[in-house]
Amino acid sequence: MPRDGSFTRDRILAAARRLVIDNGFRATTVESVIAASGSSKGAFFHHFPSKRDLADALVAEYVADDLEMLEQGMAAAYDAGPGPADRAVAFVRFYEDMADEIMTGTTGCLYTSVLAEMDLVDAGTSDPITKAVTIWRERYAELLTAAVGDRSDIDVPALSDHVFVTFEGAYLLARTTGDPTQMRRQLAVVRRLLESVLK
Amino acid sequence: MPRDGSFTRDRILAAARRLVIDNGFRATTVESVIAASGSSKGAFFHHFPSKRDLADALVAEYVADDLEMLEQGMAAAYDAGPGPADRAVAFVRFYEDMADEIMTGTTGCLYTSVLAEMDLVDAGTSDPITKAVTIWRERYAELLTAAVGDRSDIDVPALSDHVFVTFEGAYLLARTTGDPTQMRRQLAVVRRLLESVLK
Repeated sequence: MPRDGSFTRDRILAAARRLVIDNGFRATTVESVIAASGSSKGAFFHHFPSKRDLADALVAEYVADDLEMLEQGMAAAYDAGPGPADRAVAFVRFYEDMADEIMTGTTGCLYTSVLAEMDLVDAGTSDPITKAVTIWRERYAELLTAAVGDRSDIDVPALSDHVFVTFEGAYLLARTTGDPTQMRRQLAVVRRLLESVLK
Repeated sequence: MPRDGSFTRDRILAAARRLVIDNGFRATTVESVIAASGSSKGAFFHHFPSKRDLADALVAEYVADDLEMLEQGMAAAYDAGPGPADRAVAFVRFYEDMADEIMTGTTGCLYTSVLAEMDLVDAGTSDPITKAVTIWRERYAELLTAAVGDRSDIDVPALSDHVFVTFEGAYLLARTTGDPTQMRRQLAVVRRLLESVLK
């Protein structure tokens, strides 16, 4: 265990992430996080003086993971070769291939949980999510702009957002059907639609 | 006011729908619903003996509205003419044309709010949502099966689910960006992708 307590902090965040995704932020008590993480009350409040601090740390960590995955997707796209349509399709295929792994051990998305509570939105807890969505839009639009060329029938920013939209909607579909493979199937739908429109 | 008290019941449900969509079910207290609806405690408990009864009634009403809109979409599709691709596209265009109206006075979807809390899922409160999703899948697959023909590269049930997925994801996008027109833009993306793949 590192002497700086980062192990305890990470363990608390991992337990909190699961509880918040399963039950919502307001329903997740500090006591339930302490119990699930096996930490002490003292350790918890050392790392997170308030529940709002916990929320901010959860969102910061989740956003960092999300943006790291975005960069992996961008790298996979550029690895797919010089063709702009191939790259735009390869970006979605990267997540499609990762989908079953992404869904392992989770029942949903922290973004949905945070955005489901307007008081968290109003308090600014969701601001890093908005920034992450904007970065996703801009990064994928790089690939789409090259693939779309001078066609005026395609709304590139909206098409770029559609990957985020599919992720969030597929999390909901997976939860309501109890079937985590819905993520992979929905990403495959988008990938095939893109193949059709771009090639 | 009808003597059967349906006016009071409807007013309570409307206030509760708004509060639950904004803040989540657990965060919505019976007291806040009573205050927002301007009803009395006695009237509330007459109509909804428990918070679980309120949840079930909210979901039942929302599902009924959703399935009514589905039938309107199917009618619009069949009105579009005899061409199966035209019909499948017209179905999505119906919601695209309705999107700004759908987003008026709401900040999200009751389905997201209910599915965000696993205890509601485990208690069966979300079961009617699962049934509604299945009915959407089957009804739209009618149109898609005809439009897709004998092509084997298209996963018709997943493509059919993609309209639900887009709705739910676009609600999240609208909330995180604060822009309700995202619903219309995302439905337009799906409509254009469908035009491309089916025509």
